[in-house]
Amino acid sequence: MQHSAAQIGDALANIDTPALILDRSAFERNGAALMASVNGLPIAVRPHAKSHKCPEIARRQIAAGAVGICCQKASEAQAFIEAGIQNVLISNEVVGEKKIARLIAMAQQAELAVCVDHIENARALNTAAIAAGIRLGVLIELEVGAQRCGIAPGGPALALAQAICQMPGLRFLGLQSYHGPAQHLRTLSERRRAIDQATQLTRDTRDLLAKHGIVCKNIAGAGTGSFMLEACSSVYTEIQPGSYIFMDADYSRNDWHDSGMPVFEQSLFILTSIMSLRDPDHAVVDAGLKASSVDSGLPLVADLVDVRFHKASDEHGVLKRGPKAEKMWLGQKIRLIPGHCDPTVNLYDELIVVHEGRVEAIWPILARGALR
Amino acid sequence: MQHSAAQIGDALANIDTPALILDRSAFERNGAALMASVNGLPIAVRPHAKSHKCPEIARRQIAAGAVGICCQKASEAQAFIEAGIQNVLISNEVVGEKKIARLIAMAQQAELAVCVDHIENARALNTAAIAAGIRLGVLIELEVGAQRCGIAPGGPALALAQAICQMPGLRFLGLQSYHGPAQHLRTLSERRRAIDQATQLTRDTRDLLAKHGIVCKNIAGAGTGSFMLEACSSVYTEIQPGSYIFMDADYSRNDWHDSGMPVFEQSLFILTSIMSLRDPDHAVVDAGLKASSVDSGLPLVADLVDVRFHKASDEHGVLKRGPKAEKMWLGQKIRLIPGHCDPTVNLYDELIVVHEGRVEAIWPILARGALR
Repeated sequence: MQHSAAQIGDALANIDTPALILDRSAFERNGAALMASVNGLPIAVRPHAKSHKCPEIARRQIAAGAVGICCQKASEAQAFIEAGIQNVLISNEVVGEKKIARLIAMAQQAELAVCVDHIENARALNTAAIAAGIRLGVLIELEVGAQRCGIAPGGPALALAQAICQMPGLRFLGLQSYHGPAQHLRTLSERRRAIDQATQLTRDTRDLLAKHGIVCKNIAGAGTGSFMLEACSSVYTEIQPGSYIFMDADYSRNDWHDSGMPVFEQSLFILTSIMSLRDPDHAVVDAGLKASSVDSGLPLVADLVDVRFHKASDEHGVLKRGPKAEKMWLGQKIRLIPGHCDPTVNLYDELIVVHEGRVEAIWPILARGALR
Repeated sequence: MQHSAAQIGDALANIDTPALILDRSAFERNGAALMASVNGLPIAVRPHAKSHKCPEIARRQIAAGAVGICCQKASEAQAFIEAGIQNVLISNEVVGEKKIARLIAMAQQAELAVCVDHIENARALNTAAIAAGIRLGVLIELEVGAQRCGIAPGGPALALAQAICQMPGLRFLGLQSYHGPAQHLRTLSERRRAIDQATQLTRDTRDLLAKHGIVCKNIAGAGTGSFMLEACSSVYTEIQPGSYIFMDADYSRNDWHDSGMPVFEQSLFILTSIMSLRDPDHAVVDAGLKASSVDSGLPLVADLVDVRFHKASDEHGVLKRGPKAEKMWLGQKIRLIPGHCDPTVNLYDELIVVHEGRVEAIWPILARGALR
């Protein structure tokens, strides 16, 4: 844990850099827009906490109507449960003795469910749950196009569900069908095609299970790029968007036109300083690869006209100035829009909450580094 | 700070994943090889601590003959100085009031120097040093081809040196001439060309300063890809390699043939587990973008034949199996070679030191996240 970049009341220009800052108003408008967009639809909202890793944000999401949160790792869930969050779905598989022991301990403290996609893992969870005298809620994760985790829909999923229903340590809750890559398809029609396919596979599997007497109480999935499609599908019961509260450069490249979805605002920024200025055209900022994940592209420069983030090295970012750019100065503070919000947030211990140009709060990112 | 992934004495297979592990023997051989390679040359070794961020490693480097360490940020230097490291060069500019205050406080506790490349920054450092009643050691950073920080060699550097020599709060120590991109040029002849150029610019500037009565006591630079060239240049007095203790996938793509440089071994790994195995050809591991920086390419799979790390998402890595690969299993632990060691180390709170298949020590990465 490093020293804080700011104190409550500091002006934006007095925040030490690089720092992760949150525009509180934009953040609140994003949260309200999400809830309003699904208002009246038969869908629960369970935001993904892998994006923010911050219990203070989880509390606000739940206060605004979310049924709980998603986490991606047992240790991540632990950080939230220790901070008092009572309803967590680990929308991912938890494999391995140490992790399962942690999971079972948490299931005794909070309402916790987990995904499975393999009979061996189901058996290991069952054994540990029986030993602890609990029943652990599980969703079967389906592979619906993301080419990542998940069991094949249809027959394989049915066989796994039937096996789980025979396991006294497990409680079968339903299906997890998340299509990650679909979130970042640029046009709505591409996203719709992918999600329609995922929904169809999920519906068919749900119906197949029903035919065999197995009821899916929950059908969960969806992210910031597609959630309205799942919310309107009459198949999904829960949506799991994460990035909508923050947004990032990658999501800003999606076309939201005519999608019927709210257009979320950028609320998350990296505050950086110009630390080297050889000539007016060559400015270097103090935020590089350790301050902004570049897996989905470089950060964008907010506020300044015609200035581009050109290159990142470990601790530096080189800016390029176009003809319409104004003069920059040494020490100048600049806001960057991170290329990809989730792994960028994971680089910081704190979120500096800014309102009307002043630091209003500092929220610890307690699950930062919770990889396991 | 998250729960530890292991306890002393654990077998490799019992370490929770993902975890950052260090092969102690390979690490020690790398350290010894570096010192042996420059033995007898008129060059000091000041390893860069931005790679490891770990005071325990810094202590070992100094015990093996290093004159001190380099850091890249004031907060990074602070983590090392608080841990007892007494000789630190910040091989970078420190700009901004809060950072300079921190720097000056540290300069009262340890032997500390910093780089400058702008007269305004020199003035700010001078003012703060005078107020604290100290003289702060400074090196002028030259731009020698990296297109990042640094003042232009020759006249501009001379003017800055002359100004610094008039500042009672500063002590002019010499030049910092580091060519970052040159480290990753693939062939020795490309690296040699870039470093020859950097060396020539540095030599000329040194001689120009000498002609004006300004002596460069220290001329510093060099990284893992090029340090023998600087060490043999008769211009540089200090080399600053960092990655040599660990290595990574990116450095492994350099051609070291006939370079006269030691071939360092991979000592740093990400231990990961197979957490999903839909079929024998589709394994997913629990290490993704938050466990391995992909800025310089994806991780490589160590140990396994004909298995490739195909795709990373936030918390997942998808492996692809070739025809010669053996069967994989759920829960299987696999070592990955990170694409780029520095930003990967910055994702972890601890380095699990392994020797002969067992955990021998756990070294805190105390400067993890020290961005400012």
